[in-house]
Formats: sequence, structure tokens, C-alpha cells
Amino acid sequence: MEKLHIYDSLSSELKPFSSIKDGKVGMYVCGPTVYSDVHLGNVRTFLSFDVIFRYLKYLGYNVRYVRNITDVGHLVDDIDEGEDKIAVKAKAENIEPMEIVQRYSQGFHEVMRAFNALPPSIEPTATGHLIEQIEIIKKLINSGLAYESNGSVYFDIVHYNKNNSYGELSGRDINDMLNGSRDLSGQSDKKSPLDFALWKKASAGHIMRWPSPWSIGFPGWHIECSAMSSKYLGDSFDIHGGGMDLKFPHHECEIAQNIGSTDKKGANNWIHTNMLTLNGQRMSKSTGNTLLPGELLSGKSKHLTRSYSANTTRFFIHQAHYRSILDFSDAALQAAEKGYKRLISSRNILNKRPENGPKIGSFDVNKWDKSCQATMNNDFNSPQLIANLFKAVKVIQNDSKDFSVLGKDGAILLAEKMDLWMFDILGLTNDDKADSNNYQTALKAAMEIVIETRKNARDKKNWAKSDSIREKLSNAGITIKDGAAGSDFSIS
Amino acid sequence: MEKLHIYDSLSSELKPFSSIKDGKVGMYVCGPTVYSDVHLGNVRTFLSFDVIFRYLKYLGYNVRYVRNITDVGHLVDDIDEGEDKIAVKAKAENIEPMEIVQRYSQGFHEVMRAFNALPPSIEPTATGHLIEQIEIIKKLINSGLAYESNGSVYFDIVHYNKNNSYGELSGRDINDMLNGSRDLSGQSDKKSPLDFALWKKASAGHIMRWPSPWSIGFPGWHIECSAMSSKYLGDSFDIHGGGMDLKFPHHECEIAQNIGSTDKKGANNWIHTNMLTLNGQRMSKSTGNTLLPGELLSGKSKHLTRSYSANTTRFFIHQAHYRSILDFSDAALQAAEKGYKRLISSRNILNKRPENGPKIGSFDVNKWDKSCQATMNNDFNSPQLIANLFKAVKVIQNDSKDFSVLGKDGAILLAEKMDLWMFDILGLTNDDKADSNNYQTALKAAMEIVIETRKNARDKKNWAKSDSIREKLSNAGITIKDGAAGSDFSIS
Repeated sequence: MEKLHIYDSLSSELKPFSSIKDGKVGMYVCGPTVYSDVHLGNVRTFLSFDVIFRYLKYLGYNVRYVRNITDVGHLVDDIDEGEDKIAVKAKAENIEPMEIVQRYSQGFHEVMRAFNALPPSIEPTATGHLIEQIEIIKKLINSGLAYESNGSVYFDIVHYNKNNSYGELSGRDINDMLNGSRDLSGQSDKKSPLDFALWKKASAGHIMRWPSPWSIGFPGWHIECSAMSSKYLGDSFDIHGGGMDLKFPHHECEIAQNIGSTDKKGANNWIHTNMLTLNGQRMSKSTGNTLLPGELLSGKSKHLTRSYSANTTRFFIHQAHYRSILDFSDAALQAAEKGYKRLISSRNILNKRPENGPKIGSFDVNKWDKSCQATMNNDFNSPQLIANLFKAVKVIQNDSKDFSVLGKDGAILLAEKMDLWMFDILGLTNDDKADSNNYQTALKAAMEIVIETRKNARDKKNWAKSDSIREKLSNAGITIKDGAAGSDFSIS
Repeated sequence: MEKLHIYDSLSSELKPFSSIKDGKVGMYVCGPTVYSDVHLGNVRTFLSFDVIFRYLKYLGYNVRYVRNITDVGHLVDDIDEGEDKIAVKAKAENIEPMEIVQRYSQGFHEVMRAFNALPPSIEPTATGHLIEQIEIIKKLINSGLAYESNGSVYFDIVHYNKNNSYGELSGRDINDMLNGSRDLSGQSDKKSPLDFALWKKASAGHIMRWPSPWSIGFPGWHIECSAMSSKYLGDSFDIHGGGMDLKFPHHECEIAQNIGSTDKKGANNWIHTNMLTLNGQRMSKSTGNTLLPGELLSGKSKHLTRSYSANTTRFFIHQAHYRSILDFSDAALQAAEKGYKRLISSRNILNKRPENGPKIGSFDVNKWDKSCQATMNNDFNSPQLIANLFKAVKVIQNDSKDFSVLGKDGAILLAEKMDLWMFDILGLTNDDKADSNNYQTALKAAMEIVIETRKNARDKKNWAKSDSIREKLSNAGITIKDGAAGSDFSIS
């Protein structure tokens, strides 16, 4: 496609994209709830939006990418009853909830770094925006869309639905939902079981609590995203993203809050990433069918025969479109590794290509580059982009016969463009950076051979050679030490 | 010293340390204001507290280490007038203040990681604790120690000083301060020029603003630390730290706020780190006499002849006591590098030591270990600890003659204890981790020699040797590729 199109989950349409402000894009993505190790589904979601972020920047947009950290309000079972996920963990470990937040925020950022995801422009926290949340709740109460009940405040869905359609995003009908829900008469502060909490009064045992006009309590889960998206991106902004599991109730409630407090829906485009499976089955802690990002990188999982690099994993993830279900398996990862290596090594052939052949070859690199852009314009279709990259692999192979396919200029241009699509857009790296273990292992093996070569030279009294080896190593920061038990080396 | 003693900057005494709660330590350290690249003085401060954090944990304390991020309220020139440091930067770049916060928080964390500083237990932000700050301000107004004036709220120093001594920490006398300050009559909302802002009404152009009972505005700089330290550590806690430049006004104001709102001073022990100089002179942007952490690591500075590793820098920093002025210079860094390498290589000799000599040697490792602890018990005296480590270097040298000084068991124990003091406490690492560039360079040089060796073998049709080389490399993940332009390698 010549122009960027985005599949909008709210209208269920592939829509041509135009930003609200010329040259600027505001994008909000629901980040993790930091009460446990980030799971692979999160990683897939955030890497998908990383590619979207990178591509929008490549298109020349000044992108403000806001990805929040949920550090309060997300209750167990994602509903309005029960305890706060972070508080539960903090109680279990007998520490301050914010220590839990710090530990898992750190862990999350480590994983994002390992997978070479760019940091967002702003990474706001829910606890950091309580005043903003309280202000929106006040507005909702004033406009009659929210009501206080025993110190808690709820959003009045039935009232809201008179002029709006709650359930639009997730394709639910409010009457079906009402029929399917338990009767709460006398058992709840809510008028209707569909109503959701904006503010909850803290029970005596609840450890996360703040003063508010209604009670000492804590915010509902959904209000934070309305507060932070409008604060940093305005009442109307370009893109709102998240995992598909957030459509209902989280994003549905966000839309209701936005319309209720600003008369605007918030995002012009909703992007939802699809789910993961492992060996064809839903991931689930209870059945043990799970895989953590760290387990992938270390290989320590009963589902894997060995470890896979961050690059292999990214390549694997982007081989599927973000709206497709992605099935992890050892075999599929092995295949992805092979593909990724083939791609990288083909690209690296261009570095060593002799300056042979005509100046201009038979292959039109610019046309190919445009076709790469066309794939991404088609709702960020990374698998199509990768397929296109493999067309370049074929070209490089064909070129190597007499160097006439690419020509000198074409080879230089193709190298540049492949780097753009592989590294700048897909977020791959040319070698597994941060993988210094690999280098250490490799260096140790290579140095064993070098030390033996040097020993042979010395045994033959070939001092010129042994000195030259020592000098070459020394220039690269390697010091050889000869000891009673043989020679060893260190690097500086 | 047998028991930990800490120099308390408030009482100016070296005091035996005992924690308020058995087995637990609460430590609050003033973190960076994230409006520019973290400077070397900050790095020195945070690495000093990193060692303190590590040592307290080594002593068996469960340490809650809170280090805040100042993302609002810190005005240009550290006084109550003028603009917010972050807002100024945001205006200059025409972006949202929180984008400035994100950029420099990221940069700060990167530097902390590069220098192997442990993350604190909680890293709260000022904007994340506005409600808590407002609550304290309300208390201060209620107790008559603060007053509202045109929508701003100020702390009443003269009133406070009737029953307390403002200036105690920094050794200032309130009458001197009053005599030395400009007369503000009619020019300010303040009753006295010494009064400091708890809340400031935002002017029309001020972009960071929140509702409060007094005005739409923003908090003063000092109130955040009272709010966050009391929230996470209680009204009385064990240690408060920061750079010496924060004594006045920041910490002085904090104490006043604490006493005013809780009747307690906050910290039982105040720890202040001393200043840095560069080539004997005060660092200053205007004279160009500055050095950034990144410049140290890259060597890109007119003050340096080359780069220094994170380990060399840490070693250099801890060679001075945190209460001494530390002078950076190229020559001093070179000397530190030499020292650090000597220390590490001596330590590594123990790895290759043959199991020779008696079971128990003449050197008493446990006594030496105790003396290491004694140095740290003496107000975390890291230069004494390093001097002690060099005693171990001497022991290792003497031992190598007939292995009788350490003996087999002593060598094992010394290796373990050196690792403890060098790595666990001083935060050094055995090799410059994350320095995969070094490995890449080294591997490239080693592989050139290996490839030549293999070529020689093949030229001589010594297939056994060339195959053996290929196999050894392959086992370590190195693939050799033979091409027209020679052989190359890749690692997996």
C-alpha cells in the first residue's frame, strides 16, 4: 500500500491513517501490571508496538509514545472485588508494595532491553497520577455518570448506555451482559452488576490507600489509563494499543470514562495484539504450559531443547502478524533461528562483496525498498516484510555469480536498506549484543588454538612468529601469561 | 572497629550504629533531578551509597533503600523563585516535561547499570507523591508552622525557630542568615526571606501544575523528600544520605518539615558525601572544567588521554573515603587502573594455583577478613579496605614461592573472601562486563591468527589439523566461512 493503513479494532476496518496533528502521532499502550515477571504475551505485545513506534518514526512522524506502568488498582481476577494484585504479593512477602513494584518494573525493563525494544517517550505510573484520576472521577459524578456508594464510586453503565453503546469495542450487547450477570441486590454497593469501580474505599486490611473526597481508598483499574492518556496526549489522540485480552472490560471502560468526562472517545485507532499459545495450547500456569522470556533466553524450560537468542525470538515474533495467534514451540523457534541466521549472513555477504560488476545492476533496489514500505503500510505487516527481506537474500545469492544483479551501487544501497528494515524497523541487531557469554566461549576456544600455535612457534624457536602473535593479541587487548601450568590469557 | 560506626553529619560525631528496628535498616538517599545528564558528582554519591547498601546487607540487615527521582519542584538556582528545571528544558525542546523526565531517568539508570550499582528497593518520584505532599502541607498549616499567601504556601522559619534550631545541620545561625538576606518587604509573598515554599501557585506560563486546596500549582522542592521518606520508612528512620551540597537548604528544610509535621527529625544518622574536583579545580560548565560519566567510559574528553572502564572508575572512587574531596585527573585514573588490574590479576592467580603446600598456611585468612570488616565498620572506610586488599595481594605473591603462606585451604578461603570484599561490597566485577566490544575486538584478533594457522595447515594438506581446528571452533559456536576474498567467521 502506498499510504499507511491501520486496522482499527473499534470499527473493525482497515482505515487509511491520518494523524490529528500534522507530523505528530500520539500513541498510548497499556503497559504491564508489575506484580510478577513479565510474561511472553506482554513481550509479544510490546515488541509489536515497538515495531509500530519505529515505523511511525521512520515515516517521519514525531511520535509521543506513552506506555504506562500499572502499580495500583489492578485487582485479582481483573474485576472490582478482591485484593490488589500488588498488595497480595507484598503481603505474601511481608514487604512494602512499592518494593514489589520496583522489583518487577526493573525486571520488565531488563526484558525490554534484552529484546532491544526502544523505551517509550513517557512511562507514567498509576500511583503517579492519583490527582488526575480523582479529577476525572469528580467530573463523572458531576455529569451524573458516576455515583458514590459507601465511600466507593462507580460508573453508571445503564445510565451511560442511554446515549452511548457500552460493549462496542468487544462486540458485546449490554442486555446479554445484564442477563448473564448475577443479581447483586443487597450484596453490593453497585446499582447494576455491570457498573465498574472508579474509586474503592479501602478496607481495614488494604495496605495501599490515599485520601480522596469519598474515602481513604484507591483508584479503580480503568481510570488510570483515561487519566494518563488525556494528560499526555489530549482528549483525542491517534492510537491506543494493548493486548486483545484488555478489550473487555479494560478498554471498554476506558472509552466510557473518556466519553463521560470529555465527550470524546480518546483514540482514533485501536490496535489490539493477538494471543500466544505454546505447543498449540493456551498458556496456563496451572497446567504448566508456560514459557517465560527469561526461560527462552536461558533455555531452562521443559518445553525447549535449548536457548534462543533475543534476535531469534524477535524474528520469530515478527514472522507472525500482530493480529494473528502466535504459537511458540521448540521446532518453530529452531526454524526461526535458521531463517534469522540465513538473513543476517546474506546481509553480511554485502560487507565483503568485491567491488565487481557494473555500476548499476539489473535489480531495482529502490523498487524493492518501496515494496518493503508497502508491506508495513498494510497494517504493519511484518511477516510480509520478512518475506520481502528473503527476496533480497535470493538477489544476493544470484548476484554472487558475476555481480551483475546488484552492481556496485546497488550492493551499497541494498546493504543500507536491509539495515533499515532489519535493524531500525524490526529491531533486530546484527549480532546478539549483550551476549558476551557467547563471545567469551568463542574467545576461549580461539585462544586455545592461538596459544598452541604460539607454543609450536616457540618450540621451533620461530621467535619472529611468536612475537608477532603476541603483538597482534596485545593490540587487541589480550595479554598472554606463561605459567608453570601452561599459558593463559586475559583481556583488558 | 568491631561494630559499625557511622559519622553523623548532624551531630558531627562518629556514632555506633544501632538500627531502630531489630535487623532492619531504613535508608533514604536524595536521588537525581532528571533534567540533564547525570553528573560525576551524582555518580560518586550513588556509588558511595551503593557500597553502604551492600555493606549493610552483608552485615545481615534487611535494608529498605529508598532513592527518589526528583521530577518536579526543583527550581533553577535551587531557590524558590524562577522556573522548574525540568519545565525549562521541556520548553526549550518544545516537548512534554515528562519526556524530559523519561529521557534522563533512562540515562541515569543506564549509568548506574554501567557502574554496577544495585537498584534501590524503592525509587519513588516527586510527581508520584503529590497527595502525600499536600497532606503534610495541610498538617503544617494546621500547626501554625506554614501559611498561605496568594495561593502559595510557605514554611514559617522564624516561628519554627522559636522552639527549634534551623541551620543546625549546615552550621548556620538564623540571625546571620537574616542579616545577610535581602529585605523582601512588599516584593514577596513571604513573611521572612528565610521562609521556603511548600506549594507554589503556578503562573500562567508554568506547564507543570496540579490542583490543591490553595491553588493550581506545584510542590516546593523540599517537601517531596519528607513525604516519601515518611511514607516508606516511617517518621523516624535510620539513615538519610545525599551529596554535601544538599545540606543547605534542602536537608535543613526537610528536618524542619519533619519536626513540624511529626515532631520527629526523620533520620537518626545523616550521611553526606563530599565534592569532586577535576584537575584540582571545581567542576563548572562555564569554565569547561567538567567530565561526564559517559566521557570517562568513552575517553571522549579533552581532560582524558583515553577511556577508563567502569571498574577502574569505581575502584578510583572508592579509593577515597566518601567524606573526602575526590580529585579526578587522567594521571590518577591511570594509576587507579594499574592498581585495579594488579588487584584483579592477583586474585585470579588463586584460580590457577596448583594444590600445593600444606593444608593450612602461615597466613591467617580469617583474621585478615576480620580486619577488612573493621575498616568498613569505621564509617565505611573503603580506602582502608582497598589497602587491606593489597595486603592480600602481597600474601599471594609471597605464597607463590612454596605455597606455604596460604596453604591449600587458605588459598580457597582467601579467594572467597576477596570476592566478597571486591565484588559483593565494593561492587567491582571480575571483568568488565557489558564490555562485549572488548570481546569482539579480542576475538577478531585471535581469529585472524587461527584462520592463518588453519590456512597453513591446509596449504600443507594437514587435513587432520585443519579439521580439528574447525571442530574446536564449531563446539564454541564459531563457524568459519571460506570465500573468494579469504576466510571469515561468525559466531552463534
